[in-house]
Amino acid sequence: MSKPTPISGFPEWTPAQRMIEQYVLDRIRSTFELYGFAPLETRAVEPLDQLLRKGETSKEVYVIRRLHGDPEGPSGDDTLGLHFDLTVPFARYVLENAGKLNFPFRRYQIQKVWRGERPQEGRYREFLQADIDIVDRDTLAPHYEAEMPLVIGDALRSLPIPPVRIQVNNRKICEGFYRGVGLTDPEAALRAVDKLDKLGPAGVTELLATTAGASDAQAKAVLALAEISAPDPSFADAVRGLGVSDPLLDEGVEELVRVVETAAAHSPGLCVADLRIARGLDYYTGTVYETQMIGYERFGSVCSGGRYDNLASAGNVRFPGVGISIGVTRLLGLLFGADALSVSRSVPTCVLVAVTSEEQRAASNRVAEALRSRGIPTEVSPSAAKFGKQIRYAERRGIPYVWFPGTDGAPDEVKDIRSGDQVAAAAGEWTPPQADLKPLVG
Amino acid sequence: MSKPTPISGFPEWTPAQRMIEQYVLDRIRSTFELYGFAPLETRAVEPLDQLLRKGETSKEVYVIRRLHGDPEGPSGDDTLGLHFDLTVPFARYVLENAGKLNFPFRRYQIQKVWRGERPQEGRYREFLQADIDIVDRDTLAPHYEAEMPLVIGDALRSLPIPPVRIQVNNRKICEGFYRGVGLTDPEAALRAVDKLDKLGPAGVTELLATTAGASDAQAKAVLALAEISAPDPSFADAVRGLGVSDPLLDEGVEELVRVVETAAAHSPGLCVADLRIARGLDYYTGTVYETQMIGYERFGSVCSGGRYDNLASAGNVRFPGVGISIGVTRLLGLLFGADALSVSRSVPTCVLVAVTSEEQRAASNRVAEALRSRGIPTEVSPSAAKFGKQIRYAERRGIPYVWFPGTDGAPDEVKDIRSGDQVAAAAGEWTPPQADLKPLVG
Repeated sequence: MSKPTPISGFPEWTPAQRMIEQYVLDRIRSTFELYGFAPLETRAVEPLDQLLRKGETSKEVYVIRRLHGDPEGPSGDDTLGLHFDLTVPFARYVLENAGKLNFPFRRYQIQKVWRGERPQEGRYREFLQADIDIVDRDTLAPHYEAEMPLVIGDALRSLPIPPVRIQVNNRKICEGFYRGVGLTDPEAALRAVDKLDKLGPAGVTELLATTAGASDAQAKAVLALAEISAPDPSFADAVRGLGVSDPLLDEGVEELVRVVETAAAHSPGLCVADLRIARGLDYYTGTVYETQMIGYERFGSVCSGGRYDNLASAGNVRFPGVGISIGVTRLLGLLFGADALSVSRSVPTCVLVAVTSEEQRAASNRVAEALRSRGIPTEVSPSAAKFGKQIRYAERRGIPYVWFPGTDGAPDEVKDIRSGDQVAAAAGEWTPPQADLKPLVG
Repeated sequence: MSKPTPISGFPEWTPAQRMIEQYVLDRIRSTFELYGFAPLETRAVEPLDQLLRKGETSKEVYVIRRLHGDPEGPSGDDTLGLHFDLTVPFARYVLENAGKLNFPFRRYQIQKVWRGERPQEGRYREFLQADIDIVDRDTLAPHYEAEMPLVIGDALRSLPIPPVRIQVNNRKICEGFYRGVGLTDPEAALRAVDKLDKLGPAGVTELLATTAGASDAQAKAVLALAEISAPDPSFADAVRGLGVSDPLLDEGVEELVRVVETAAAHSPGLCVADLRIARGLDYYTGTVYETQMIGYERFGSVCSGGRYDNLASAGNVRFPGVGISIGVTRLLGLLFGADALSVSRSVPTCVLVAVTSEEQRAASNRVAEALRSRGIPTEVSPSAAKFGKQIRYAERRGIPYVWFPGTDGAPDEVKDIRSGDQVAAAAGEWTPPQADLKPLVG
């Protein structure tokens, strides 16, 4: 076998990076559970027709087939694809299990997703997402839209990453406003505004004209709305200052005021109303969220989501929801690339027990057992080489302590190989400083 | 959208079952880390030619393609398949990153794998495995083969599952013995013995004749070896009693004695030398492991593995390894099916904060914040309905406490809804009994 090479878009971390990722996932999960979200995992595959319900994403789907299945290839109805997000599978899960679930249903879901996109910095074909969603039957109270930023704020603040700013908007504001200025295809207008970063105001004006039939005056109003941004409810005055009136607009403003106020009461500066935030996916119907790391705005959003009213429905029953998704792989990939995260050692091991001779390995095993039984991660040395070589095994991995079993009745000794300090110790009693017990992530 | 239905072979747990699974995974991971295994994840896909290197598994592979990729389908070299185990991807990872890794390299890996097999009880198309492996460059010390059962014994003993028995054998014993009785195709003989449970002695005798050219006397000797089983090194005497002599046989016996002795010193009764254990996959070259739950032997092995000398090699460099894999989905699926696992509530939430009126929701939010900041999982009630209805929200989910914010200067009160006890409490000080903080798994 020749030396294998990486596959573009399918990142693999080193064990040290994976320790950082696990630390990050543990913190995120812990915050989600503090807010009472229950864990869920869905299968990796969905029927292809389910995945294609939202036309925009069809190009990104991977389909799977059994190598020795039907040689004609899978037939339409049975074709399975890998999920490209966690929201569509969750909506399907809710419909499938509605009779067994208690509503409102709060769940978190941390899983890989796959998209056949062209790979580039921070954009992968396989990546990990950490989602929370709340769905209810028939109607969903708007206070849940105000809760999302609290959870995400707490989750991201618990991580060794730069501080974040959550940008919020409400689809009702855009749709109501566009209708209020006389545009008849608000979705087309929204999609044009979504390209503001890419095309600039002139490009969006042109796009609004061609795709949404907007006059210059209408385009100007649309852009004026998109320019409004404030960390407090004052954005509402700015909207009213544009002189457009529409009941849906008013409803959206009221909901967004509540989101911003709730976030400010929890954590001042966390949330900013930013009326240019559109989110490309067309299933959002209320609040939408994007999240930037301060100082790393060039990375784009690392956590996005919104309210959706029509994603899960069967017959007369509807399950409106709101959710938000942390792009864990994207976040970590960007920070790893910027050398902004580190861990104090490359293994979980806190103590390496030296082996005096292969005949004495059982004695070293007993020391290791005693340490592990008290929660201290411990390895036994790979060989009974000279102690200098055994110490280098620890050094190369960043293991802080080497334990020397006593011979001929002498007590055991443990050496901090960073300082060189060596002291007599008993495996049933010795405990490392708390800071050394687990690898430190920073 | 009509109501979706499950896809055979792709199990999905309820949130309560997922809580049990997470508890199990946390325990397994904690044990792996106590033994100094570093975490690793590999991508879900491998080049198809890599996956097919072991001919036996080709029928089980799922291949993937981009829906809007090359309409001709993927070409041979670029075809990607979903991994069907974690050993083959790990061997590839080691070869690809050998220059960056420290050897011996100990890693654990907990991930989904996919196989296009016919689904049946305890056999899935998508399932979770938890693997440990140790690889070294050029040679791997045999004491690592003795370490595997200690880790697995500790990991499985930490779970709320029946006690287990690890059955061990050594390929060198079989191969040396078969050679010693004059059989020239030991692999064919091994594959025949692997079918002993399915075919019985008569069937295996016939298979040995047709596939391995075994005479009646040779088949009888092979079956006599397979019958040897002992929880201690006495198995070695039984092997010698068969009167077959071969240097590889002697080496295998010596190694297996060490495995059994090391396990007995750690945990009497954990390991049994069982010389019928063959393991189908042909890459094993030394110790092989299977694991049965006592009382649930009908479920088959829930944790298997072995030593492999030739899985990862490039040019002159070889990375022999030993590994073992816990079939987490299989284990849980069988125990869920037998109603043998439960959890004390269906959400992580310990406290539900009642809402007196929607205007007072911010006050309830502040209580929730204070509780969460001290690590107490807390939800705020979905609505300001009558308290009886709010209490029923908690009851249905098994949430043990409901918190009532005080009005008009009265103190807050917290009610244990199981006992009905209600006491005055302050959100900055009250703490639930430790047993109520998190859902209990048993």
